[in-house]
Amino acid sequence: MTRWTPPPSDLPTSWYNVLPRLQSPLEPPLHPATRQPVGPDDLAPLFPMGLIAQEVSSEPWIDIPGEVLDILRLWRPTPLVRAIRLEQALGTPARIYFKDESVSPAGSHKPNTAVPQVFYNRVEGTTRLATETGAGQWGTALSFACAQFDLECMVYMVRSSYEAKAYRKTMMEVWGGRVVPSPVAEPEHPGSLGTAITDAVRDAATRPDTHYSLGSVLNHVLLHQTVIGLEARDQLSAAGERLPDVVIAPCGGGSNLAGIALPFYEDAAVRIMAVEPSSCPTLTEGRFDYDFGDTGGLTPLLPMYTLGHEFVPPRIHAGGLRYHGDAPIISNLVRDGRVEAVAYPQGKVFDAAIQFARTEGKIPAPETAHGIRAAIDEALAAKETGEERVILFNFSGHGHLDLAAYDEYLRGDLPDY
Amino acid sequence: MTRWTPPPSDLPTSWYNVLPRLQSPLEPPLHPATRQPVGPDDLAPLFPMGLIAQEVSSEPWIDIPGEVLDILRLWRPTPLVRAIRLEQALGTPARIYFKDESVSPAGSHKPNTAVPQVFYNRVEGTTRLATETGAGQWGTALSFACAQFDLECMVYMVRSSYEAKAYRKTMMEVWGGRVVPSPVAEPEHPGSLGTAITDAVRDAATRPDTHYSLGSVLNHVLLHQTVIGLEARDQLSAAGERLPDVVIAPCGGGSNLAGIALPFYEDAAVRIMAVEPSSCPTLTEGRFDYDFGDTGGLTPLLPMYTLGHEFVPPRIHAGGLRYHGDAPIISNLVRDGRVEAVAYPQGKVFDAAIQFARTEGKIPAPETAHGIRAAIDEALAAKETGEERVILFNFSGHGHLDLAAYDEYLRGDLPDY
Repeated sequence: MTRWTPPPSDLPTSWYNVLPRLQSPLEPPLHPATRQPVGPDDLAPLFPMGLIAQEVSSEPWIDIPGEVLDILRLWRPTPLVRAIRLEQALGTPARIYFKDESVSPAGSHKPNTAVPQVFYNRVEGTTRLATETGAGQWGTALSFACAQFDLECMVYMVRSSYEAKAYRKTMMEVWGGRVVPSPVAEPEHPGSLGTAITDAVRDAATRPDTHYSLGSVLNHVLLHQTVIGLEARDQLSAAGERLPDVVIAPCGGGSNLAGIALPFYEDAAVRIMAVEPSSCPTLTEGRFDYDFGDTGGLTPLLPMYTLGHEFVPPRIHAGGLRYHGDAPIISNLVRDGRVEAVAYPQGKVFDAAIQFARTEGKIPAPETAHGIRAAIDEALAAKETGEERVILFNFSGHGHLDLAAYDEYLRGDLPDY
Repeated sequence: MTRWTPPPSDLPTSWYNVLPRLQSPLEPPLHPATRQPVGPDDLAPLFPMGLIAQEVSSEPWIDIPGEVLDILRLWRPTPLVRAIRLEQALGTPARIYFKDESVSPAGSHKPNTAVPQVFYNRVEGTTRLATETGAGQWGTALSFACAQFDLECMVYMVRSSYEAKAYRKTMMEVWGGRVVPSPVAEPEHPGSLGTAITDAVRDAATRPDTHYSLGSVLNHVLLHQTVIGLEARDQLSAAGERLPDVVIAPCGGGSNLAGIALPFYEDAAVRIMAVEPSSCPTLTEGRFDYDFGDTGGLTPLLPMYTLGHEFVPPRIHAGGLRYHGDAPIISNLVRDGRVEAVAYPQGKVFDAAIQFARTEGKIPAPETAHGIRAAIDEALAAKETGEERVILFNFSGHGHLDLAAYDEYLRGDLPDY
């Protein structure tokens, strides 16, 4: 068999919390002005207490509320697929599996956290959420989730993307989201994730009906994504595998990698690999330090690998990987040697994307293709040594709204940094 | 439970052939010049004998070759989903199920026939296929299938679509297809499905290495799509349902409707409903007659409902439903009263698409939204009468490459014919 899709009754009912299991405890975020640890009261204007509690929880497992499960069941459990045609094309003895998160309504893994975030906000009476989006994946996911719980969704979209990626904006509007270009106050400014965070935080801080929502980096976001890896464990077992030798995912803010890999954290023999762009090499070339989560210096200081909050990566197509920092949890695991990191230039990444599309059919998002590149290289290494390696990677999203990038690649116009 | 995805081992291994079971036998296609029935020799320059044989087969079941199953397993069996959140929003006692064909690599039901068509061509030594595509769904599916069997794929794309739908073209190129605008000889002409068929047939007829491939209308195409309905029967049974009260699908050339509905043909109590656009009302307002399959008058004359082969429908977004005729099999069943037909203007169709996206999450293709409109109206009729009706419709494709149409609708600019 090549595909394992358990019935919706097999959905995990708890999230896996890595916090109490970490070898080195996580350093706390610091207040940007006082440099003192940030407490729940500092976060209350922006987040509901349900999420603030998860941010620091020491419970090893956290129950997923039934109303959240009711929405996740629209597309979960997602399929685990053995990429047998890709294996054959590579001539590798490795067995390559991918977890297909592209089947969600928004087309990526992002709704796994958007749904519970909206739920906890609604429980505490919030009727409106504000967020930022760069390429549009996160804004799409949050708009979808808000539609399910009847909350208003206000998305500040980086102006250059707002103008170049009109279809992403339409997708958000189909689900009822409101989308405006950022920075709102400077109509000539192309915007950046930094300006959009500033707009969204200001909106949430100044309206009592509104909270703020973030799509990666924070502990509670990574927690919600662990449904991916929990399902994958059971599906690999149904496929007759004991454990993977290596778990691979692209890494921008870190939620994608955390989702598939953290449930394998305690299996010491399982290698965990973060894949990032050479042009934004946070884990491979950054330093571990306290730094701001945004470019404007508004957020708490987070303990993480960073290229400096003023670092501006070039305009690669994998917009979701253009982030100067990384999740504190992932940074902690890299520092402790539990997670390895590799970086690729985007030309090699698109080579892998095309090879995957022509063998397995599915067209990956540029972010996702980073993981595919590393999986192919692992499979080729196994071919060299003749090893029966088991490789698991996260197919985090489809590329249906990224075809302009493929066009550039096929025409030979893709800058290869 | 709300979703049923059987393992790939449960894939149907035979196609359901309705031809020997029809109440009135199908009239033969006629040669355009002689008006005599067309024989296998007339078709041999364009199609492989494997497909020509299926076109007139009297076998009630036809085995699906193993190499075809190996590719179909990349995404089949597709999920059957109960649209419980839509039911709740409608307040209906009806149970609404949809078969999700949008999960294929090309995003629609079209690869179900593209794969066997390429297979039978390859078996007989053809190394190159030529076809036409309007909005791009069929060209996408054939490019994908050709990539799986290492055939060259030449797609003549209606020039106006080639220019307006650049991303569809890119998608074909990702799988290695070659795409040129049609008519090739007149670079100022906007093109039509008629000109593109002419270009593709001429290409195939003048090159010995090349055959022609068609994405709907013909008997063998409808045959290949019956995997949809065969799977749906088993999945409905797993869901605890006996039979649906009504099976619904959009109907352009007819393969989508045939795929989900023909396996229910012999269950007399199951209503079968074709949904078409008011602006191209072939089944609801056309006449039953012999007519050309193309607008240029090159193809055999087919016995079917038609608006006349020179009929030009307005530019609605459901490009796949802009066809003057209909499959002879579907036309036969409408004439005999076995299939009912309804027509909707596109405004009502997009109302339904938005309601579906906001409740069930998935964004449908405009063609698919026609079936959703009819399913919603059936569910509302059941609410009127308090009936527990079981409704099954075909979610034939996603709308990720149709977001410009949604944008027009949301801005209030959609022409409502």
